[in-house]
Amino acid sequence: MSFERLIAKIKETKNPTVVGLDPSFSYVPQYLRDAFLPEFPDPLEGAAYAVLEYNKGIIDAICDIVPAIKPQAAYYEIYGWYGMKAFAETITYAQEKGMYVIIDGKRNDIGSTMEAYAAAHLGTVDLDGQIATPFGGDALTVNGYLGTDGISPLLKVCKEQDKGIFVLVKTSNPSSGELQDKKINKRTVYEVMGKMCETWGKELRGESGYSAVGAVVGATYPEQLSELRAKMPHTFFLVPGYGAQGGGAKDVAGAFDENGLGAIVNSSRGIICAYKKGDWAENQYAEAARAEAIRMRDDIAQFVTIK
Amino acid sequence: MSFERLIAKIKETKNPTVVGLDPSFSYVPQYLRDAFLPEFPDPLEGAAYAVLEYNKGIIDAICDIVPAIKPQAAYYEIYGWYGMKAFAETITYAQEKGMYVIIDGKRNDIGSTMEAYAAAHLGTVDLDGQIATPFGGDALTVNGYLGTDGISPLLKVCKEQDKGIFVLVKTSNPSSGELQDKKINKRTVYEVMGKMCETWGKELRGESGYSAVGAVVGATYPEQLSELRAKMPHTFFLVPGYGAQGGGAKDVAGAFDENGLGAIVNSSRGIICAYKKGDWAENQYAEAARAEAIRMRDDIAQFVTIK
Repeated sequence: MSFERLIAKIKETKNPTVVGLDPSFSYVPQYLRDAFLPEFPDPLEGAAYAVLEYNKGIIDAICDIVPAIKPQAAYYEIYGWYGMKAFAETITYAQEKGMYVIIDGKRNDIGSTMEAYAAAHLGTVDLDGQIATPFGGDALTVNGYLGTDGISPLLKVCKEQDKGIFVLVKTSNPSSGELQDKKINKRTVYEVMGKMCETWGKELRGESGYSAVGAVVGATYPEQLSELRAKMPHTFFLVPGYGAQGGGAKDVAGAFDENGLGAIVNSSRGIICAYKKGDWAENQYAEAARAEAIRMRDDIAQFVTIK
Repeated sequence: MSFERLIAKIKETKNPTVVGLDPSFSYVPQYLRDAFLPEFPDPLEGAAYAVLEYNKGIIDAICDIVPAIKPQAAYYEIYGWYGMKAFAETITYAQEKGMYVIIDGKRNDIGSTMEAYAAAHLGTVDLDGQIATPFGGDALTVNGYLGTDGISPLLKVCKEQDKGIFVLVKTSNPSSGELQDKKINKRTVYEVMGKMCETWGKELRGESGYSAVGAVVGATYPEQLSELRAKMPHTFFLVPGYGAQGGGAKDVAGAFDENGLGAIVNSSRGIICAYKKGDWAENQYAEAARAEAIRMRDDIAQFVTIK
């Protein structure tokens, strides 16, 4: 009902990071594209197979040292329904290798529709008595702009099926402040959203003290990270923005508690495109990803010690 | 580059409404479920076929009198990737029948990821020289919580491929006010978001005066609808909340301009489940949907005259 499974994986690997599987086609090594694209009449299908192969290589290379992956839905939807098949198969493959899967979908809607998203990405669906698992992720990113109606259907699935959500609070992009930094009375919009996360998670706290309702807080705003860490003691953070977006290990340190827990830092491009930097051959993309995952883990360990 | 194609369809049908295709499994007539579920080892696949058949029946029944459909992504994702195949096929089928397709995905993310969503739902993708169309909708609902970075990639696709977006401004659900009604200086969060829509759409206005950047404003808040109509003269409205959610024809009247344009009102359950009310047999679900679509059109026509 909370993030205890994720926290256990983080402790086991001594690594509070997650690899974002955002397979833009330009990231996929050319030899994989060439192997699959010509095999299918519909290029979307060939591309989806290339992406799945690429992902599997990365998962194989990192599954023993990284606790989680975060596939970003947009980079699968871009290959149409074939991409969603690759998305589903990537999730299953990673879980079979013992990894925790955070679906980055930033889904949001009201009541019954949000129930459908919750079932789709985290839960199960009852089809005239047959229980099926559509995508079966372990956690899902969501957008709380619609308020409690949009979040409560997820809480039920979190509780019953031991899953988690991460609500967008302070995002890592340059224009995140246009709305999020605006003040409501004396509090910023992101503080109001953060407060709502603490409320939503109240009944869903685990042994660690963290609830099943996490928050997305960008590495590119280190001051806000520390501020929110203090104000949201029961909320686990997903921290994007490390690496390619400009955040460093020192910037993310404030996201962690005194036990070195309470946050997981994402890197996508930095790891899955690591082969494009240095002397790697294309077919060493997985080794390059592993090397960069280790570098990132050790980089963060300079500032964060997991107890 | 704006909503001119949608406006033309509304004028042609004299009907400013859109049918939400939200095929929750409990909405699908039992005879269709029984026809498909047992045929497939994976119930998700059988369910997806039943949903597609259901949708086609509704589209056939309404395509000459209703300008647009709005498939809600959650109700396809719940059937896994099979559901996304039905989603893609529903979109294509409706467009072949001359309908305008608003994908209700409420997507949101930053820069490059939002580019991927834009390509996935509205645009095309270049796969080593082969141009493919992943889902090919005409418009997409989006969430603007992340600010301009999350919207600008869409504007490019709107401009180049004559598509539109609807940004969540004031949603129809009971708790929408938790964040959206809060005041930033003297303006509510939804007014700030509305203002941003006007800004984002500035360079994308069509002959009608409306831009490619529309807004979602719920029928359940009629005062805010009229207020926003006055403050957002270049922003076309998508109005959910009519019917099942409690909004009536009088409530939506304020969304329209003096020419009876400027808005399209959605009904989902009210139309696609019309067969569950009254004396319809299950296999008359499409006729029932048509009858209800006509009733809704005429209901709104009491208050709104398209010039």
